[in-house]
Amino acid sequence: MSFSTIAWEGGITSKGKVKILDQTMLPNSVCYKYIHTPLEMSEAIQALKIRGAPLIGVATAYGIALASQKAKSKKEIESAMELLANTRKTAYNVFSTLNRMKKIVGTDYNLSLLILEEAHKIKQEDELLCQKIGDAPIYLAKEKIKMVYAAETRPLLQGARLTAWELTQAGIPVTLICDSVKGVILRDKKVDFCIVGADRIAKNGDTANKIGTYTLAVLAKRHNIPFYVAAPYTTFDPTIESGDQIPIELRSADEVREIRNFEIAPKNIEVFNPAFDITPNEYITAFITEKGIIYPPFYD
Amino acid sequence: MSFSTIAWEGGITSKGKVKILDQTMLPNSVCYKYIHTPLEMSEAIQALKIRGAPLIGVATAYGIALASQKAKSKKEIESAMELLANTRKTAYNVFSTLNRMKKIVGTDYNLSLLILEEAHKIKQEDELLCQKIGDAPIYLAKEKIKMVYAAETRPLLQGARLTAWELTQAGIPVTLICDSVKGVILRDKKVDFCIVGADRIAKNGDTANKIGTYTLAVLAKRHNIPFYVAAPYTTFDPTIESGDQIPIELRSADEVREIRNFEIAPKNIEVFNPAFDITPNEYITAFITEKGIIYPPFYD
Repeated sequence: MSFSTIAWEGGITSKGKVKILDQTMLPNSVCYKYIHTPLEMSEAIQALKIRGAPLIGVATAYGIALASQKAKSKKEIESAMELLANTRKTAYNVFSTLNRMKKIVGTDYNLSLLILEEAHKIKQEDELLCQKIGDAPIYLAKEKIKMVYAAETRPLLQGARLTAWELTQAGIPVTLICDSVKGVILRDKKVDFCIVGADRIAKNGDTANKIGTYTLAVLAKRHNIPFYVAAPYTTFDPTIESGDQIPIELRSADEVREIRNFEIAPKNIEVFNPAFDITPNEYITAFITEKGIIYPPFYD
Repeated sequence: MSFSTIAWEGGITSKGKVKILDQTMLPNSVCYKYIHTPLEMSEAIQALKIRGAPLIGVATAYGIALASQKAKSKKEIESAMELLANTRKTAYNVFSTLNRMKKIVGTDYNLSLLILEEAHKIKQEDELLCQKIGDAPIYLAKEKIKMVYAAETRPLLQGARLTAWELTQAGIPVTLICDSVKGVILRDKKVDFCIVGADRIAKNGDTANKIGTYTLAVLAKRHNIPFYVAAPYTTFDPTIESGDQIPIELRSADEVREIRNFEIAPKNIEVFNPAFDITPNEYITAFITEKGIIYPPFYD
């Protein structure tokens, strides 16, 4: 990536702030915003200004760092952690971050300094991880890639606004499709493989990811096309056995009923708007991680 | 339906015009427009102001009626037929209409009168057919229906703007979903059956319908959910053996890149935007037609 999505600015021990790239404005505008409190961070994550499980993990870390600078007691840091834990429950990276921060808060050293250092470390690790993961399947292989078909990913169009845009920036040929075109693409376009991300991976390999992933997985199996999940190790949740234990965030009906405040559906119509779905392990060919490719069985 | 989508107004032998409900404005506005020439009719069909294969068949008939009122020769009527034949090539109802009109044009009687009478007849038949077909699965059974899940149907959102709205008008409970939610709905929501429409049905039962139908069919098969195609007999094309002979209309990239002139994707990004897809016969449980339910095999 040639742009930065999140950065700490200002003091090490006080008055720090976090600069974020507002992803809801891409690609029309490249807007940065400043975040000063854990509450502002939680709101930015909830509004998808910050999105993608690994980045949410980094944002959570910086949110705790902001709290620790102003906190007069451990209790205040802990309530910031509680707030951020409840912001987007599907993403496991949030909990990896919280587990690391909890260990630090358990000590009695200069907490705000240690927490900020840990947050920087989480960010650096994330950048390295994401680069390693991205490099393998897409960016390094770009000379060999004839075409990436990117689904637009309704309702919030991350596929159109972000995936398609990032691939274009990287010089990789991309064709945008509506989500309902997936079946025809897999049947007719000689697709070599599918790649999706992950928000949380259970011990048995069941994977929570952006809504539509399960549909794509069923289509890929039907057409015998390999189906890869690309995700850093921090996405693997060692505390749950299977996907049915992953909470699925239901988001607001207006995300579907409106685009940029323009009504595109009947007023007040009932909407079912899950942000994620679970893809069972049997649909997944392998996981692409920074530590290499992990093939089934996934049970250990 | 409690509203009229198309109606002939004005003179029987001259100065006739066609009043249409502009479906692109629904449900925000109920707008009617007047159509005076075959070219205007062709443009209205192309812009999806008039849509749905049976209605396109009726619109084609009235377009020919408009031509015949002003035509000084059979040739002029024939060029109007040629124009309308090329407007939306996937819909078979256009060709059913054209075949009926060709027989009339072959005679030497008062053409404009005969053509208008035939157009009225096609419209009345269509209304009766659509009512019979709709009655069976949805409207008559409405007391038994607990919930219809309607996919929004990107890019032009006919599912949100039209299907969901019409069901609501008829007092049938409906929940709107993004197209990518289909997989989760069929897996988790105890769905009893799927119903789709059709634009053209080949002799072997392969069916062209709105893009996304094939994806739904694969998901339905995966979850052992019956998959019905509801369509009038005029949608069956006796001249082709299988789905690969049905032309698929590719529509403009801007339909995907913009919503109401607001850009929702990177400028100039390549887009693959097929309006329809083909569902092979083996995915179809049965056809619901005005003549009853047709079960496989479909080969005669």
